[in-house]
Amino acid sequence: MDTRIKKLVDYMEHQSVDVLLITQPKNVYYFTGFLTDPHERFMGLVLIKGEDPFLFLPLLDAGNAETVSSVRKIYSHDDAENAYEVLQRYLPSNISTLGLEKNHLTVKSYEAVVGIAKAGEIHEIDELLQEMRVSKSQDEIAKIKKAIQITEEALRLTIPKIKLDVTEMEVVAELEYQIKRLGTQGPSFSSIVLAGEKAGHPHGHPGDRKIKTGEFLLLDFGVILDGYVSDLSRTFAIGEINDQLKDIYDTVLQANLQAIESVRPGEPIANVDLSARAVIENRGYGQYFINRVGHGFGMEIHEHPSVHSKAEGLLREGMTFTIEPGIYNPKLTGVRIEDNVVVTKDGVNVLSTFPKELQTLDL
Amino acid sequence: MDTRIKKLVDYMEHQSVDVLLITQPKNVYYFTGFLTDPHERFMGLVLIKGEDPFLFLPLLDAGNAETVSSVRKIYSHDDAENAYEVLQRYLPSNISTLGLEKNHLTVKSYEAVVGIAKAGEIHEIDELLQEMRVSKSQDEIAKIKKAIQITEEALRLTIPKIKLDVTEMEVVAELEYQIKRLGTQGPSFSSIVLAGEKAGHPHGHPGDRKIKTGEFLLLDFGVILDGYVSDLSRTFAIGEINDQLKDIYDTVLQANLQAIESVRPGEPIANVDLSARAVIENRGYGQYFINRVGHGFGMEIHEHPSVHSKAEGLLREGMTFTIEPGIYNPKLTGVRIEDNVVVTKDGVNVLSTFPKELQTLDL
Repeated sequence: MDTRIKKLVDYMEHQSVDVLLITQPKNVYYFTGFLTDPHERFMGLVLIKGEDPFLFLPLLDAGNAETVSSVRKIYSHDDAENAYEVLQRYLPSNISTLGLEKNHLTVKSYEAVVGIAKAGEIHEIDELLQEMRVSKSQDEIAKIKKAIQITEEALRLTIPKIKLDVTEMEVVAELEYQIKRLGTQGPSFSSIVLAGEKAGHPHGHPGDRKIKTGEFLLLDFGVILDGYVSDLSRTFAIGEINDQLKDIYDTVLQANLQAIESVRPGEPIANVDLSARAVIENRGYGQYFINRVGHGFGMEIHEHPSVHSKAEGLLREGMTFTIEPGIYNPKLTGVRIEDNVVVTKDGVNVLSTFPKELQTLDL
Repeated sequence: MDTRIKKLVDYMEHQSVDVLLITQPKNVYYFTGFLTDPHERFMGLVLIKGEDPFLFLPLLDAGNAETVSSVRKIYSHDDAENAYEVLQRYLPSNISTLGLEKNHLTVKSYEAVVGIAKAGEIHEIDELLQEMRVSKSQDEIAKIKKAIQITEEALRLTIPKIKLDVTEMEVVAELEYQIKRLGTQGPSFSSIVLAGEKAGHPHGHPGDRKIKTGEFLLLDFGVILDGYVSDLSRTFAIGEINDQLKDIYDTVLQANLQAIESVRPGEPIANVDLSARAVIENRGYGQYFINRVGHGFGMEIHEHPSVHSKAEGLLREGMTFTIEPGIYNPKLTGVRIEDNVVVTKDGVNVLSTFPKELQTLDL
């Protein structure tokens, strides 16, 4: 934490920023070890040139913060106060440059902050924070690995509970039950379990649809463990499936493998998407691969980089992202095979290990 | 839906707004019946004076939207496109006033929208939407009631699984398993289960802490069902508890009852908080009631009104909010008793029915 705060202090020095305000909860966690979802309440980590940083919190979070935060100075506001007016008491009266997250603050909150800070200039710090967080340390990668291991264990424990005529939502219930029993802080996003034609919607909602033989069952889920997330998809055949479905599955699998093959530091990020897309287009399914091949993840389920066909920038050591090509035909079915990878010094490390060759569940 | 859209159209007429952009996912759901979490992708409902409204979506959500949205015109952008540039094609070139949600749009997104819309004036529509949503219809109240019924059923089913030395997180796992098995779309927020001194933090995180006799066990959780949420807290005694704990429980219970008693249309919102606060202060626990007595809820877990001691405005028929006084002593324990209420024509209807007299679980 201290090294991270030090980087902010150096940045403020170099960029002549007097005051830095960090409000995105995961960014606050990254610098302090304190995590909360403040909902509509206002919260932030504040750095003032030449002073110790402090956390500014809703009163009901102060107790937790005192226990876990590495930043020891904590000020709070209660629910009946105007948080911005309280914050103003702790800010210098002559701020020439104020740094803040334009990608997180709402316009309303921004206007309130600007109103009390009366800064001469506003300096956007989103890119700085993104750059700091995009390359994961060994410690962070170890945490991500642990999250993935538990994800795969939850999947293994859930498979025996998948039966004919069980609904998608019942599988979600079992999956998330295992996720919590295994000691995580819960799912990293709303788990997706889709059967048959419903799998043809990449963002479909699990519901009453029952599991039938001769179809695909698509699962896409992850966990949060010690502040880090996983994001895994596998698609299973329920009983015997026809050749058309087998061809779709094999196409997605080859696309997944080709995309992984393309990962190497210094290569364009876009190439990862284009490698998968080439396979799917060559086999005639191009129109059904309707989204990017993957997205960064770490403390959040969607982080930088966005791995799409026109992404700018190069792959760098320590970047962690998903590789999840898919074919989605809403009239027929869908297949997605999603791994989690990290860019290494000279290539790629696939962190997810769950088998991805077509597996048939004979129910 | 059509009546709701009609209100927007009338508003645009009266306020001379040319174009309205609604991006908050629950607001979009309120007007279209289509719900998604677009994460960092851009999504919105767009109304242009004199034209049919349209949804502007990430391509991977378009299939779902076509199935459920009452707004039939749908345009989409894919992951490799700049969403704002695509949106620009569908906007008129001469917008004099653009209405948008300052309380939801990030500064970054706002700047991008303003950049492409080139509107003469920006008009804030947060209050309009808040006003529309704050008074729930009979249909909405029926949905909320159903969500609460399932919440209470999940609690009833979970209680027999609470045993000595079971951890908080295992109770969460059981609770959320039941929530999903009962056919909901999942928990409405991260379920809280806290034992003993951990209950002394209103926003504590469930973990490895085991359930012991002679202590309190606090549960605070809810569900999402058909787009509407519930939010219920109950605190149980595990085995025999001492008189000090019994006094704390009774104080919170009396505060809860007094606050409910105070609810009547036309009365100040602040009175609900002050009624509960008076009870807790009179019995000497004022310093341990560190947050507001409640918050509105409906499609979101925190909605207008915020029920705190300095809240402005009056109670209105159809407002739904929580009443959840608590005593939080981080060195000792915590108690919260939370109900969900709706303001009726001449008083209040308590929607939650789970008993709140002190219940002892003999494990």
